[in-house]
Amino acid sequence: MPFSYLTHLECAREGTRYDASVPQRLCECGSPLLARYDLDAARVEWSKDALADEPHTMWRYHALLPVQSADAVVSLGEGLTPILDLPHYGRAIGVPNLVAKDEGQLPTGSFKARGASAGVSRARELGIDRIAMPTNGNAGAAWSAYAARAGLEMLVVMPKDAPEMTRKECVAAGADLRLVDGLIGDAGAIVARAADRHGYFPVSTLKEPYRLEGKKTMGFEIAEQGGWQLPDVIVYPAGGGVGLIGIAKALRELAALGWISGPMPKMVAVQAAGCAPIVRAFEAGADTAEPWQDAHTVAFGINVASGVGDFLMLEAIRATGGCAVAVSDEEILAELAACARSDGAFFCPEGAATLAAVKQLRANGWLSGDERVLVINTGSPLKYPDAIRADPPLLQIHDDV
Amino acid sequence: MPFSYLTHLECAREGTRYDASVPQRLCECGSPLLARYDLDAARVEWSKDALADEPHTMWRYHALLPVQSADAVVSLGEGLTPILDLPHYGRAIGVPNLVAKDEGQLPTGSFKARGASAGVSRARELGIDRIAMPTNGNAGAAWSAYAARAGLEMLVVMPKDAPEMTRKECVAAGADLRLVDGLIGDAGAIVARAADRHGYFPVSTLKEPYRLEGKKTMGFEIAEQGGWQLPDVIVYPAGGGVGLIGIAKALRELAALGWISGPMPKMVAVQAAGCAPIVRAFEAGADTAEPWQDAHTVAFGINVASGVGDFLMLEAIRATGGCAVAVSDEEILAELAACARSDGAFFCPEGAATLAAVKQLRANGWLSGDERVLVINTGSPLKYPDAIRADPPLLQIHDDV
Repeated sequence: MPFSYLTHLECAREGTRYDASVPQRLCECGSPLLARYDLDAARVEWSKDALADEPHTMWRYHALLPVQSADAVVSLGEGLTPILDLPHYGRAIGVPNLVAKDEGQLPTGSFKARGASAGVSRARELGIDRIAMPTNGNAGAAWSAYAARAGLEMLVVMPKDAPEMTRKECVAAGADLRLVDGLIGDAGAIVARAADRHGYFPVSTLKEPYRLEGKKTMGFEIAEQGGWQLPDVIVYPAGGGVGLIGIAKALRELAALGWISGPMPKMVAVQAAGCAPIVRAFEAGADTAEPWQDAHTVAFGINVASGVGDFLMLEAIRATGGCAVAVSDEEILAELAACARSDGAFFCPEGAATLAAVKQLRANGWLSGDERVLVINTGSPLKYPDAIRADPPLLQIHDDV
Repeated sequence: MPFSYLTHLECAREGTRYDASVPQRLCECGSPLLARYDLDAARVEWSKDALADEPHTMWRYHALLPVQSADAVVSLGEGLTPILDLPHYGRAIGVPNLVAKDEGQLPTGSFKARGASAGVSRARELGIDRIAMPTNGNAGAAWSAYAARAGLEMLVVMPKDAPEMTRKECVAAGADLRLVDGLIGDAGAIVARAADRHGYFPVSTLKEPYRLEGKKTMGFEIAEQGGWQLPDVIVYPAGGGVGLIGIAKALRELAALGWISGPMPKMVAVQAAGCAPIVRAFEAGADTAEPWQDAHTVAFGINVASGVGDFLMLEAIRATGGCAVAVSDEEILAELAACARSDGAFFCPEGAATLAAVKQLRANGWLSGDERVLVINTGSPLKYPDAIRADPPLLQIHDDV
């Protein structure tokens, strides 16, 4: 069997076919391109049993990833993050079968490592040597690290309010970092101009096709780690939405292989009340989302006012019978603290937003409490020192407790 | 086969035997107790092949861990951290076969998760419900999380200069945290008094026998992930030294099983020039180390002026033909930055200390450059925002790069 069954790229809206052997960005219509594979051949030649011999990283699924050879893979050991039960917290909110996939245990401390590993590997394989991206922090940190490893030159533009630690990660990896007094959309506009002017290949969210392929490995892992039995509901904190779209794509690919069957998990997108364009569009029954004005939230990674993947998120939510939910910053911080205290599972604010959503969906009856619910904790809490307050008493050495 | 082959505890200095079925602390002589297993039975009944069916965590080695049943395991998904090659950095310092085990990709962001998972699991199994510990930060963060998960009450005493993020981790997990205007030894004295006064079980470094068992899983993983071929040299940043002692213990146990053979890797202990009691003792040919005065280093986790495991570290170093090396804070920060930039591998200062040591040992000829050298990056850099400086330019939204 080949290392990868990649055949071509396809416009997510119109189905227009593009050559995958050269660098591609968006379709001419402005929509994202999706990587397509020879699933018929893979169904015959590939098997679940073959996974036993693969590495303990997301690259174990290389057959349905875009990179053409093992030598081209740029890896920091990413993948197979644990799925944790949350027994005390789950019972407390009335959802005893609650589990969390802990993406904080990845290189660079977030699920962005998956997209970066796939995106950087494929960029280098296609001969690209200078990349540029806007970021809310974690993606810039991840892509900077993988770019350094691959020897690619990297420009990052980040809102000045992004978590400060992510600046240091970019700089540590040698990226050319600029802050902007604005939001990620403003950073994206600066990157687009810089790409034209200086010849960077832009790797903004869904504006190149391969980051999504890395992110989709969350879906492969959820299936494999669950013994090819899927949860009933998957809850995801949605900014650009690449992870949600990716998980849905992965599950459809596995269904085409015949490795999973039955109903797809209901996909739930969680946004912050201060930035909820997808929730608003979902509730309005719209197919696309209008940009959100004055976006703000403590969960900075999902402070995304608009994105080119809006219609793909809304499609995945509706196709699976899911929903979109907004949660307040107060709810996010309260559930973050409650889960850490109850089960020792300390989430980033974006991850904690999924907990707040589950609690809300149980309270309003959308969840009955019997479902197997999987939430995605997208990253490490260590980049968010302000999410928890600590004022411990100071002792002198002869003091007693 | 039984879940665990644990038989008893044994004084590391005198060999005195202790009952492992009840809580134990130190030997009456003041030395650590080591967990012993029925290796003869394990050799017959257990096999490498059986590992294929085990979970992708350190608990895959449960046969040589102290916990008596799978139900008693308190886990956040810890273990099987990746071993990364460092091709650019390694070549630059003349050690091309340099690899790093990245323990930053563990729950709570450090290798302390291993000791906490084993220690908390076993404490709860033995009926202990209140524990207390001194910490330089990472151990407190890890034990607090596992204690929360296990429902144990937890007291933590930490020097006020420990990384600030680790305070928040303890508090988030619901621990009772106190700072002390002193060093970890002062924190230990406060914990000892609190234990007597309030009935906490103290779980200070090597003063209970099971943290070491968790840490030793690094040794099992190094062997298994290397296909049961060992590196020539293992380089470890030594504070209390539990990891170094644990790796050496694990490799001896694997040799007794017949799973590995040949010479043991040379064990190298790295300390900071501002706190190097083991280096001083090694160079003096002493069997034990005198406490270091005025200890200080940016690598706060190894700011340990004295410890009860000194003789075990010195024994392991000498028995394998290893050595002990001191590195300056300037060297630590320089190699931290160089490795991140070269290979996208961003280490904590303690981990970077091992890089500085490898560079020094190559420069002075102790390493020829042909050896396969494995360094332990003990934790995530995300808790050390001051280790990297970032002053990126600030753009307005209409500015160009």
